[in-house]
Amino acid sequence: MELNLNKVKLLDDERIDQLYSNDFRIIQSPNVFSFSIDAVLLANFANPVMKKGAKVVDLCAGNGAVGIFMSNKVNGEIIEVEIQERLANMAKRSIELNDLAEKISVINQDLNQLGNQIKKDSVDMITCNPPYFLNSDMSQKNENQHYAIARHEITVNLEQIIKVSSGLLKFGGKINFVYRPDRLLEMLDKMRRYNIEPKKIQMVHPKPGKEANMVLVQGIKAGKKGGLRYLYPITIADEKGQYTGIVRELLYGK
Amino acid sequence: MELNLNKVKLLDDERIDQLYSNDFRIIQSPNVFSFSIDAVLLANFANPVMKKGAKVVDLCAGNGAVGIFMSNKVNGEIIEVEIQERLANMAKRSIELNDLAEKISVINQDLNQLGNQIKKDSVDMITCNPPYFLNSDMSQKNENQHYAIARHEITVNLEQIIKVSSGLLKFGGKINFVYRPDRLLEMLDKMRRYNIEPKKIQMVHPKPGKEANMVLVQGIKAGKKGGLRYLYPITIADEKGQYTGIVRELLYGK
Repeated sequence: MELNLNKVKLLDDERIDQLYSNDFRIIQSPNVFSFSIDAVLLANFANPVMKKGAKVVDLCAGNGAVGIFMSNKVNGEIIEVEIQERLANMAKRSIELNDLAEKISVINQDLNQLGNQIKKDSVDMITCNPPYFLNSDMSQKNENQHYAIARHEITVNLEQIIKVSSGLLKFGGKINFVYRPDRLLEMLDKMRRYNIEPKKIQMVHPKPGKEANMVLVQGIKAGKKGGLRYLYPITIADEKGQYTGIVRELLYGK
Repeated sequence: MELNLNKVKLLDDERIDQLYSNDFRIIQSPNVFSFSIDAVLLANFANPVMKKGAKVVDLCAGNGAVGIFMSNKVNGEIIEVEIQERLANMAKRSIELNDLAEKISVINQDLNQLGNQIKKDSVDMITCNPPYFLNSDMSQKNENQHYAIARHEITVNLEQIIKVSSGLLKFGGKINFVYRPDRLLEMLDKMRRYNIEPKKIQMVHPKPGKEANMVLVQGIKAGKKGGLRYLYPITIADEKGQYTGIVRELLYGK
């Protein structure tokens, strides 16, 4: 794929990062937001929606990485929702950079204020990498406001995300999250409270022998109760700190 | 350790199995019940209680394997509770066989009928390998009544086990379960309903790449909410079907 740089302008603090496994290019800025391994894992974990005309929504889209990474798994449209103007703008330019403007659009909006911009009960699949930390958890709070909003429940909290998602999803529609294990139970409780049945969990461990520090979760709106499955986990790096095979493949391709 | 066979009699269908990692010998009978890898994993997962005078209870004790396997991790007494007379009798003889009668006792009783045989709020740790299947789940039901009771919720169900356990445990006392992943969420819900906060989970996968088919769960009575940790999982066998290092060690020692 030729780099379509004539279409997009980079701001001074921006660079272009490439996901070598599928040639996608993402505009990043260390000053406001950079996608990391969690976005790559989430896009990989989400089931492909190859039904023609499928509608997929990525909430808390940040700089748009998740939507772009899974674009080749969707035979339809992807809508990215991001509250921060600067990040939504980066997402739009990354979409142009990858010639994906016909497939992916960006709504720069608080997801609590979506109104009818996305029709209720119309979405086949949602992905979301929510803010991980409680707003009250100051110990972890980043002084940079862009990062703070992406990481802490300042503008949106988990319950709001799940409530909005449940409204958007079709019956039988799927939602995929990447989250923190220490809040997993809270997530599962809230999913069930809003009629989303948890169906698949995959733990992510940083190294062999270490506790999980990320978790991937899939639920189905109005899904049959019970039967939650736990996939074989992903281990990010081996004992020597080198990426494991699966992670190398996700980042650099086969 | 010398085999204390002069003390115990074996019935016709019984044999003695040895856990080589710690020399314990367990009376087994394929006709009524045999301990398997889940008992070994549960005894290993349970935190040792080295406090002098600790009181440990194993519920749904079967032929007593879990209590015997963890006896060297407990500096106090272990009480095994088993409803089936034949199994409780096997447990008693295995305890004698291992010269553990001063440490381990057996109550042959329905755990719902324990009354004051074990004092409320007095137990430091409980272990339990509950029946895995709903009574209604006929597809999996074994025609042998001994196995049926051990595997299906015929004489006791999960809610009763957790309710009784919560009554027996001290505040801050721990409970350890081995269970099926597809009922894990139900277990976590019921633990929290009876004031036991889930604290530690370890998945068990039969092979690399395969979904978990067992799970180890630890909870603390009246524990602080949240902060559930997911330990690195146990994989039973490698790609070739050979036991992995950790499992070999648990079964055969270092």
